[in-house]
Amino acid sequence: MIPNLIDTTDLTEKEIRYFLRVAQAFSEAVKKNQSLKILEGQTVVNLFFENSTRTRLSFEMATRKLGGGVMSFSASSSSVKKGETLIDTAKTIQAMRPHALVVRHASAGSPHVLSKFLTIPVINAGDGFHEHPTQALLDAFTIEQKLGTLSRKKVVIMGDIAHSRVARSNINILKKLGATVAVCAPPTLLPPSPQVLGVEAGYRPEDVLPDADVVMMLRVQFERQNKMQIPSVEEYSRYWGLNRERAALLKPGAIILHPGPVNRGVELDPDVADSDRSVILDQVYNGILVRMAVLAVLCQPEHLQQWLKKEGHHV
Amino acid sequence: MIPNLIDTTDLTEKEIRYFLRVAQAFSEAVKKNQSLKILEGQTVVNLFFENSTRTRLSFEMATRKLGGGVMSFSASSSSVKKGETLIDTAKTIQAMRPHALVVRHASAGSPHVLSKFLTIPVINAGDGFHEHPTQALLDAFTIEQKLGTLSRKKVVIMGDIAHSRVARSNINILKKLGATVAVCAPPTLLPPSPQVLGVEAGYRPEDVLPDADVVMMLRVQFERQNKMQIPSVEEYSRYWGLNRERAALLKPGAIILHPGPVNRGVELDPDVADSDRSVILDQVYNGILVRMAVLAVLCQPEHLQQWLKKEGHHV
Amino acid sequence: MIPNLIDTTDLTEKEIRYFLRVAQAFSEAVKKNQSLKILEGQTVVNLFFENSTRTRLSFEMATRKLGGGVMSFSASSSSVKKGETLIDTAKTIQAMRPHALVVRHASAGSPHVLSKFLTIPVINAGDGFHEHPTQALLDAFTIEQKLGTLSRKKVVIMGDIAHSRVARSNINILKKLGATVAVCAPPTLLPPSPQVLGVEAGYRPEDVLPDADVVMMLRVQFERQNKMQIPSVEEYSRYWGLNRERAALLKPGAIILHPGPVNRGVELDPDVADSDRSVILDQVYNGILVRMAVLAVLCQPEHLQQWLKKEGHHV
Repeated sequence: MIPNLIDTTDLTEKEIRYFLRVAQAFSEAVKKNQSLKILEGQTVVNLFFENSTRTRLSFEMATRKLGGGVMSFSASSSSVKKGETLIDTAKTIQAMRPHALVVRHASAGSPHVLSKFLTIPVINAGDGFHEHPTQALLDAFTIEQKLGTLSRKKVVIMGDIAHSRVARSNINILKKLGATVAVCAPPTLLPPSPQVLGVEAGYRPEDVLPDADVVMMLRVQFERQNKMQIPSVEEYSRYWGLNRERAALLKPGAIILHPGPVNRGVELDPDVADSDRSVILDQVYNGILVRMAVLAVLCQPEHLQQWLKKEGHHV
Repeated sequence: MIPNLIDTTDLTEKEIRYFLRVAQAFSEAVKKNQSLKILEGQTVVNLFFENSTRTRLSFEMATRKLGGGVMSFSASSSSVKKGETLIDTAKTIQAMRPHALVVRHASAGSPHVLSKFLTIPVINAGDGFHEHPTQALLDAFTIEQKLGTLSRKKVVIMGDIAHSRVARSNINILKKLGATVAVCAPPTLLPPSPQVLGVEAGYRPEDVLPDADVVMMLRVQFERQNKMQIPSVEEYSRYWGLNRERAALLKPGAIILHPGPVNRGVELDPDVADSDRSVILDQVYNGILVRMAVLAVLCQPEHLQQWLKKEGHHV
Repeated sequence: MIPNLIDTTDLTEKEIRYFLRVAQAFSEAVKKNQSLKILEGQTVVNLFFENSTRTRLSFEMATRKLGGGVMSFSASSSSVKKGETLIDTAKTIQAMRPHALVVRHASAGSPHVLSKFLTIPVINAGDGFHEHPTQALLDAFTIEQKLGTLSRKKVVIMGDIAHSRVARSNINILKKLGATVAVCAPPTLLPPSPQVLGVEAGYRPEDVLPDADVVMMLRVQFERQNKMQIPSVEEYSRYWGLNRERAALLKPGAIILHPGPVNRGVELDPDVADSDRSVILDQVYNGILVRMAVLAVLCQPEHLQQWLKKEGHHV
């Protein structure tokens, strides 16, 4: 089975499909107010070295909806400040015998390193510019929920591709599920050689939007860049923001995603963010379902199998 | 029914009475160690943009005593720092499908604005200089617990009336429950036209204390004023603090309230704070009961009705 | 019975033994996945005025494993910043009727002072340079688990003895359980008159290590000293750090403890920290068991007795 969820490159289509089908099964169970106990008696530790509202709350909600307990700690109050290594911090937490570790860290690769030293499942909740696998899973889940399938759909990711773990994880997952992916950004926000991403790259939104079934907008991450690689926020917004004129280029039925938090008026026009095309709040809710699936698959695979069977799911 | 608890101006006497009677019913249930499940399976989110110990813990305790789950987050770790609007933060949290949102915010009116955009109950846990409804409810509950009734009682509120959400909410609630309210403060800590409050206003504690059944002391909120509107803390304390001499002016049986945290030796003499007249710690405990009532009434009105009926309460 | 756990000086050998035996009983129950309910319906408040990862998480885990609820708050968001006294903060929390208070504070003696004003059990989770009783209990538990007994064992505590609450509590407990204790540090990190500790004091690790059954390394607490009382970290590490050469002086079977977090390469060589002699991660897990014992003994002595009897433990 899958012991960790660190990155999306080694996930097979079958594994991805399994996560999504389990999320769907949980969606139905939650709708019926079914009380789930798949993580009963288990504890998930959230180890967040970067601030986060939605991801931490989402994992917390997911754990509790499965009957598990949560312990969270943030870097600001941690032993890391006292000179402890990240590995020692993680091994100390593991010595308390929790059942999974959810890690967010500013350094790409740190969840991977931790997973080498730990024997409990490690779930990457975002590591630097590297990956954010559960975000990509929830995006795929949301697109299929809205469009029926990802197969042959065209997904355009717009924004700071070079510094986005969300883009990186999504490109991998969406391609494996049969979608065509294109990225669109000013040249300074694309990797030096965009072809390494294995997707089409364009500079002008007007060129790519008319063909898109899905537009995935990324945040301008003011806080993550040493200096802005764009002349100004106004200029970025004018040429690459999804405003009403550009949204009007979209096909009927095309949908708009954003991982949040949204900078209204920067990458996304407020009217567009609140329009019928926007599925941003669906993403938030689906994030809980997908994280429930990830936790159940990694922590309690057999218990999960029994539950699925009992419920009549063939996943 | 009442979908939110934002301010006290639109609360009817009947609604206030209902909250207080439900709190009383819970008080008896807790005394009998009854396990309450009115919020079972529900989640209350505490969204605190201002620091708070007692109010946050009190809501947390209240939620858990009703069998509900709590998720808390503070502004310091929130998406608000990443440029997200308050409304988007609240809508994102709502998309995770909790059952109520408890909000504290430095800006007057923000819980009101949020309630317009949300479909779950919003409870104001203090908004700027505006209102703090659950504090006023717990004060009313405490006074009636000690004095039997509020009807025709004289309540004197002393301190920084102009900047106090506690004063504002209390004036509304206490008057609706039949009390006479007076405020007493140096002129700079009263509104420019004190008559807008609809209560008597005095400058000298010595004038108002002899008639009081209840003295409600307010904190000198050093942290909330841009600059002190009083010459010095020492002078404030000497002329408006409730010291032993002034406390001696009180009628037998008169009680002293303070919303906490107390600045000992500033607005309240340590001996007076610890005297038999002081009901400050009763306020703390009653805060839990009143918040249980508010949560149950807003989140589970029918479940609550059934419980009350089953327990033989006619409220 | 024992109403608080503030310091180790007034603990009798019998009381210490009782804590350790209860911890052992819980160890077996946890191994059998037994669901414990000794603190069911109870709430433990963690009141941490100093940052801590492991101690806070450990108490949290311990409380939950006994079926209790936890509420935590840290100084940074507390009323203490608003001018409230420590005693008022604690009395306010007690007024919410939790069942125990776990306190960590930078001022030696503050848990003792609090215990005079409170009627619920107070557990000292570290107070300045004074005491850290649960750390010493978990150390004793770990040593007996590894060596069978403490009787006649030689324990060498190395490092900043003068500023260490861990050393102070351990010396008391270990001696009461029959061990011989020696301390070893540069003169500036020993008390001015080391004989007040009632143990042997040495300056050279090479003198004391060959006889040791247990070496307890202390952290160099950069954050706790006003200025370093050692010429440099490098020099400290060279002369007092437990490196491979010094570890080679140890008898076969001798074990190494460290309260964590470890400064790798300062007081402890990475290879030594990860060697078979090191029981650092056992300490972490045992910390949970010992804290479960402390909470159960202080909060629910009768309920605990019944459980022990039912399980066939004669402790």
